Amino acid sequence: MASPRVTRRSGPGRPGYDLDSLLSVAVKVFNEKGYDGTSMETLAQRLGITKSSIYHHVSGKEELLELALGRALNGLFAVTTEPEVTSGPYVDRLEHLVRRSVHVLATELPYVTLLLRVRGNSPVERRALARRREFDDVVAQLVAEAVSEGDLRPDIDPALISRLLFGMVNSLIEWYSPRGGTSIDQLADAVVHMTFEGLRTH
Amino acid sequence: MASPRVTRRSGPGRPGYDLDSLLSVAVKVFNEKGYDGTSMETLAQRLGITKSSIYHHVSGKEELLELALGRALNGLFAVTTEPEVTSGPYVDRLEHLVRRSVHVLATELPYVTLLLRVRGNSPVERRALARRREFDDVVAQLVAEAVSEGDLRPDIDPALISRLLFGMVNSLIEWYSPRGGTSIDQLADAVVHMTFEGLRTH
Repeated sequence: MASPRVTRRSGPGRPGYDLDSLLSVAVKVFNEKGYDGTSMETLAQRLGITKSSIYHHVSGKEELLELALGRALNGLFAVTTEPEVTSGPYVDRLEHLVRRSVHVLATELPYVTLLLRVRGNSPVERRALARRREFDDVVAQLVAEAVSEGDLRPDIDPALISRLLFGMVNSLIEWYSPRGGTSIDQLADAVVHMTFEGLRTH
Repeated sequence: MASPRVTRRSGPGRPGYDLDSLLSVAVKVFNEKGYDGTSMETLAQRLGITKSSIYHHVSGKEELLELALGRALNGLFAVTTEPEVTSGPYVDRLEHLVRRSVHVLATELPYVTLLLRVRGNSPVERRALARRREFDDVVAQLVAEAVSEGDLRPDIDPALISRLLFGMVNSLIEWYSPRGGTSIDQLADAVVHMTFEGLRTH
């Protein structure tokens, strides 16, 4: 799948909006009203510009969705190619992947929120779901390798470990606020320590 | 808050539906289309009965929502009064609560799914959110006591531990299928072992 064309048609446009800031507002509205429940008219009203000003940047609502989902997915996939994920003991690769995924979720919160709510109602959504499954496969593979290297407990099904790990990570979209008292590093430490070392002191 | 009146007006009704089976179909439709997007007409069509047959059981859509949310909440609150949660070391109380919450989620999956998607758009939804917060407070209290008894690691904020624990538990609604190969006991063991003991073997 081609990577989103973030810079295409991102010329001067109307004062106040380049493609990135337009996308940021659009994603907020999609998350509030649901993508299907958001019309170009609604977006234009919310942005305080005309529909044709939006068409100056993108071909329509679907391209905004594709760009937004791409941003979340590209963030997550970028993590999978970091050196800490491509070499070393698998348990450490997995731990790094989890830690950095928390960072991506927390920094790209509205984009990942949109991604995690996608149900596959259109080709764009189905491509996003396919890439999510690809990412999940990377996680599952790391877990399986870490178990076979003897560094992760063998008494839980590796597929279940993957689901539960990212169940915890993905839950951030339900409750994490960047304006709360918890830094992203604290959050990532908490997730990693809870799951890799456990909560009990003995 | 009064407990849902599951048996009220649950007389013979139309062949094929008592209040419980009607509720079960309604919850399925609410989860598919969203509560706000479901009309009594849609429900009647899906049930293959007339609207007035539904009114034989309940006063309307809102009562179905209240009964459904009550079923999920009552299941969760019932766990908080089990003897294993009201006596003994707090770390063990917490572990039991987590384990049994997994059971409630897995056995009442559609009802808890509906509960976890509630956003507070009506008095019924706001009451459900208030009860969810009450449940969260019970969890947070157990975590804080277990930390102060020295049985849970003190280096993660107790509020964060609660969020992440139930982030993992609640993620079940996104991916767990009772028809998959994982039993509820395996699922509960996996959640408890991952989080209380940790994944690493050393």
